[in-house]
Amino acid sequence: MTQHSAASLGAFFAPRAIAVIGASDNPTRIGGRPVDFCKAAGFDGPIYPVNPTRDTVQGLKAWPDIEAIEGEVDLAVLAIPAARAEETLEACGRKGVKAAVIFSAGFSEVGEEGRAAQDRLLAIAARYGMRILGPNCLGCYSSASGACATFTTGLEGGMPRRGGIGLITQSGAYGTHLLSMAKARRLGVAGWVSTGNEADISVAECLEYMVEQPEITAIGMYMEGVNDAPRLIRALSRARDLRKPVTIIKVGASEVGAAAVQSHTASLAGSDASFQAVIEQYGAVRAMTTEEMFDTLYAASVAPMPKGKRLGILTVSGGAGVLMADAAELRGMQVPAMPEASVTKLLERNPFASPRNPVDITAHALNDFDLIPENLAEMMRTGGYDAYTGFFTSWTSSPVIGPKLRDVLLQTLKGAELPFAVIGLFNDEQATAYEDQGLLTFADPSRAVTALATMAQLAEGFDRGAEGTPPVIDDTDLTGTPTDEAGAKTRLAEAGIPILPERVVGTADEAAAAAQEMGLPVVLKIVSPDIAHKTEVGGVALNLGDAKAVRDEARRMLTDIPTLCPGARIMGILVSPMAGAGVELIVGTQRDPVMGPMVMVGLGGVLTEVLEDVALAHAPVSEAQALQMLARLRGAKLLDGYRGEQPVDRAAIASVIARLSVLAAANADTIDSIEINPLLARPEGAVALDALILPVAAQDVPQDGKDKT
Amino acid sequence: MTQHSAASLGAFFAPRAIAVIGASDNPTRIGGRPVDFCKAAGFDGPIYPVNPTRDTVQGLKAWPDIEAIEGEVDLAVLAIPAARAEETLEACGRKGVKAAVIFSAGFSEVGEEGRAAQDRLLAIAARYGMRILGPNCLGCYSSASGACATFTTGLEGGMPRRGGIGLITQSGAYGTHLLSMAKARRLGVAGWVSTGNEADISVAECLEYMVEQPEITAIGMYMEGVNDAPRLIRALSRARDLRKPVTIIKVGASEVGAAAVQSHTASLAGSDASFQAVIEQYGAVRAMTTEEMFDTLYAASVAPMPKGKRLGILTVSGGAGVLMADAAELRGMQVPAMPEASVTKLLERNPFASPRNPVDITAHALNDFDLIPENLAEMMRTGGYDAYTGFFTSWTSSPVIGPKLRDVLLQTLKGAELPFAVIGLFNDEQATAYEDQGLLTFADPSRAVTALATMAQLAEGFDRGAEGTPPVIDDTDLTGTPTDEAGAKTRLAEAGIPILPERVVGTADEAAAAAQEMGLPVVLKIVSPDIAHKTEVGGVALNLGDAKAVRDEARRMLTDIPTLCPGARIMGILVSPMAGAGVELIVGTQRDPVMGPMVMVGLGGVLTEVLEDVALAHAPVSEAQALQMLARLRGAKLLDGYRGEQPVDRAAIASVIARLSVLAAANADTIDSIEINPLLARPEGAVALDALILPVAAQDVPQDGKDKT
Repeated sequence: MTQHSAASLGAFFAPRAIAVIGASDNPTRIGGRPVDFCKAAGFDGPIYPVNPTRDTVQGLKAWPDIEAIEGEVDLAVLAIPAARAEETLEACGRKGVKAAVIFSAGFSEVGEEGRAAQDRLLAIAARYGMRILGPNCLGCYSSASGACATFTTGLEGGMPRRGGIGLITQSGAYGTHLLSMAKARRLGVAGWVSTGNEADISVAECLEYMVEQPEITAIGMYMEGVNDAPRLIRALSRARDLRKPVTIIKVGASEVGAAAVQSHTASLAGSDASFQAVIEQYGAVRAMTTEEMFDTLYAASVAPMPKGKRLGILTVSGGAGVLMADAAELRGMQVPAMPEASVTKLLERNPFASPRNPVDITAHALNDFDLIPENLAEMMRTGGYDAYTGFFTSWTSSPVIGPKLRDVLLQTLKGAELPFAVIGLFNDEQATAYEDQGLLTFADPSRAVTALATMAQLAEGFDRGAEGTPPVIDDTDLTGTPTDEAGAKTRLAEAGIPILPERVVGTADEAAAAAQEMGLPVVLKIVSPDIAHKTEVGGVALNLGDAKAVRDEARRMLTDIPTLCPGARIMGILVSPMAGAGVELIVGTQRDPVMGPMVMVGLGGVLTEVLEDVALAHAPVSEAQALQMLARLRGAKLLDGYRGEQPVDRAAIASVIARLSVLAAANADTIDSIEINPLLARPEGAVALDALILPVAAQDVPQDGKDKT
Repeated sequence: MTQHSAASLGAFFAPRAIAVIGASDNPTRIGGRPVDFCKAAGFDGPIYPVNPTRDTVQGLKAWPDIEAIEGEVDLAVLAIPAARAEETLEACGRKGVKAAVIFSAGFSEVGEEGRAAQDRLLAIAARYGMRILGPNCLGCYSSASGACATFTTGLEGGMPRRGGIGLITQSGAYGTHLLSMAKARRLGVAGWVSTGNEADISVAECLEYMVEQPEITAIGMYMEGVNDAPRLIRALSRARDLRKPVTIIKVGASEVGAAAVQSHTASLAGSDASFQAVIEQYGAVRAMTTEEMFDTLYAASVAPMPKGKRLGILTVSGGAGVLMADAAELRGMQVPAMPEASVTKLLERNPFASPRNPVDITAHALNDFDLIPENLAEMMRTGGYDAYTGFFTSWTSSPVIGPKLRDVLLQTLKGAELPFAVIGLFNDEQATAYEDQGLLTFADPSRAVTALATMAQLAEGFDRGAEGTPPVIDDTDLTGTPTDEAGAKTRLAEAGIPILPERVVGTADEAAAAAQEMGLPVVLKIVSPDIAHKTEVGGVALNLGDAKAVRDEARRMLTDIPTLCPGARIMGILVSPMAGAGVELIVGTQRDPVMGPMVMVGLGGVLTEVLEDVALAHAPVSEAQALQMLARLRGAKLLDGYRGEQPVDRAAIASVIARLSVLAAANADTIDSIEINPLLARPEGAVALDALILPVAAQDVPQDGKDKT
């Protein structure tokens, strides 16, 4: 697929003229809806219905075919059966159409023949330099231009409010649900696009486009598969650089879900964990539910972003305050207390209060309304909060107190660039009055806190930016690296990853001499490219304390193992010192079939193997990013000294992760996985005790990559 | 506090006559609202406004004082300042009032004086056999009787729809929010009560009352503290026996939240984990957000309970189906596939479909509407699902297709006693039409799945019932048990908890003899009630393989330790065999200051100490419940044989947990904690290797209860 500039998507969202091929006079039919919607949305260019059997369509002059139209056509909507798609697209090409939306189903989603037909559409489009949305899609919609190249029922009964939200969806039916939900919640929508089979245009490219539109301030995506990971990553990075919030629903996280996605899309199955890691790494957030996505979009498109995670809670109900404090902690917000001087001052004014944070003014505020602005002003003056929630029970919805409350809040907040969420508002009119002034309203306190926390997480991602650069390794080419332990470790050592001094020897006497030279006690391991599980064949001997023991063990290995493993090439015995105390980790890289090279770290033993406590990132990463990965481990405390032991060297671990990730990225096409297991982290430094490098060709060789020595 | 029968709460919810003392002619004032609300709700008995300055109040004859009223008064509402509460309550007593709601604030919540005044109110009530709700509360409301002994603004602008939901809240302000939220969501409410300071009536007693009311089918509670744990547990058990769903919000889970609760209520701080354990153990569920609570109440009060966790997903959008499958897995529901024969049959009928489960009919159903009932009928016939979700994009809200869709769904589901949730409905009128027929509607698919999963969890709790009985131990009295290891273990052994054969000896020679008798290798440990950390003083020697080594070590201990610990009473040396291989656990009991005796189990080492992976239950528990606790551990896989080891004996562990819990419950007032650490679980049996029993008096002795031998 040629990589087009996303700017060419302008013809879909802001065309100068639209032709609807297969236009119907009935505004509820698939071919009738785009015409009806364009009129309802006030599309400001000409609309050309194409229908050879009619003179007019919905009051507009109809044209017998696209080429007959007098005037240029930027965008053609193909509301016709699949069988006629090719000839029609050809005609569009001849007419000089720039962009075509193809509703027709019956292409790659139905099997091989359909895929071939879809490829032919793509070839036609390429010949004329046209872009295609679909086939098998519901089209697109832009509130700015009023272009409605869609038959989604989500636009029936009226357009959504205009606003800053962009919506991108792979699923048409769920995309319709998203539009309906946005309308039911009175959210301001800027644009919407459903990508269907993604023959040409993917969700990633739509994101690239929307990110650059100034009127779009927050973007929500619904995804089933990723067809274009590098482009998605590029678009996410760009969104981060422009500080534009992106929230993504990606289905298929469960086993049943993943199987169902496979059965109804043509997308490759990447690991859900890899997807999740990429999202977070590039500054977007993943929404676990549709409501959560809309809460984030709502908050980010209405209110300023918070500058940090400090939440100030103003309340007239102790309980509601505590409930929000609980929710804040659960969602990673902080609820720091007011300074003592402020507490004293506020208590003098209102002895019933509990003005720490939550700042609980109590229902007393109803009798003494000035308490509300006074307490809020003091919170803003001395509390240093980045975001606020305010709970005023049913007062907000009251026709008498409501407007008065709104006025004092707006006055007090004037000029403060921070998000404030009013809780417990059940009145749409009053809610709109707040929202028009950049304040948020939520019926449910927990959802408000979650939305603010998500905004803070996004803002943190934006601030963090690219977070350092991956280390530079002079020679990253792993081609031809031997797959045995010694070869792998030598190669990793060349890439700057510390290993123990070690030597491969050929005889028992050489082993004893090497051991005495490097200092006893030592470890012996058999070296063979043909033996993956050394322990099982007696190929590992630990903690050998004198020369005789070393000689005896080496002799035993050289005698017994060739018998046990006939045909295995024995390259010698590896002698290395005992590693000493520290924390064992696993650091590895793995090619994700969708996302490409990923790097992983976990704590050794039970934590990784039973609890799957690992942190993942897209390779390459910087050392700063690697430190973030370590911090994400649930068992990270172990690195700080468990049971009175010394803390280990996180920077040294991070260096290994980063270097491994650089190697993985540089060899993305040829290396399947690299694994250091264990990496021994010590109070100073970290050292790879065992390693494995698996080239892509070796993927189907039955090796689990874990050598439990 | 006297334990009243909850039946006496009938006077609050179904009084024959209500007096409002401090009644106002202005229906928006605190003393005016109860009168106004009672009229609006159609209270069917006499309402007696008491106001010495007026002849009428809101059109009703006013009375100068309560005793002047001609006619009996069941319920008196005290809408008067705190200063007048005592005399007024006395007058109520003389009048023969059965129940009094006291709105007045200024009692225990403001300090010592207030608490004394509150105690005087309680004494007056006791003298006359009256019950008190409050003080410092917003009162109560019953939709059946129309009694509105409350000034909550939540009843302003109209009563909620009548229905089966009971709401119990400690917080008045948040209780008002709950009522507003219930009204905004069109939920059917049966009753509501705010308990305030709980001088007499606690949330637990309100639960006891509501559980017994046939018109109340689901109960939601908002709690800040527990003042009456045994009663709460009794009420929850009763709800479980009656299969009545209870969902609870309990604030104060976070550190800031717990501190804030302390500062604004008089409740003791129990551990949040203990509360959580009790809730689950007695068949209720905890709601993490207010919306989640209402979703559960809505589902449980409208639809039948599911009989299991198998979710059938019918959809016209692949994406929506996958999204719900993901949500189901996340929430513990199963999404089992349709039988192959059914899949084949449905595919023959509709080749575009993907009828496994999710059963995706695709948008093709719009052209061939019969596909919807046909697929659903087949799912019901052969799928064996316990609950259903149906996603039909915007069709549900459409004025044309909507009613048609509803008809076929209702027809197909006729007679099937199972919950069905229609997703994506944004039209209140159509939603009501579904709900009136016992079907659920949700705008958001994830919330629908969560609500069904919560129902399934509740139903499972009901089915499980009391889940066995705790083991019987003949002599449970731990009074006078020595606190040293040997004493504790001997006592636990008497209670049926296995320990290793061991002996306390006085001399090195006796130690050597004992070791040879029980079989080498052995462990030696110093026995002293004054030494908590044996290892630190050299009081533990492991793996001694011959008689000489035993003798030498014993001699060293008996010589060195008295010097290191002058004044420590040395009772001898404990000799026991080495324990061998297995999985180490920690089993313990602890008195929670609120909930009473709790029993805990965790896997030894990192899992318990770093990841806090423990399971907790209220003591006593049966062995079946103890097995459930084991299953809840995140690291439970370790019990099934990790890295090729043999599975350990779960039943033996469960027996130890259950027995320990029986001891804890029997000695709840005198024993602070019992700890077995480690309990060694083996392929057959489990054995306590070390134990500690701490009496309550020893609570403030600085001992961490963990002896890291």
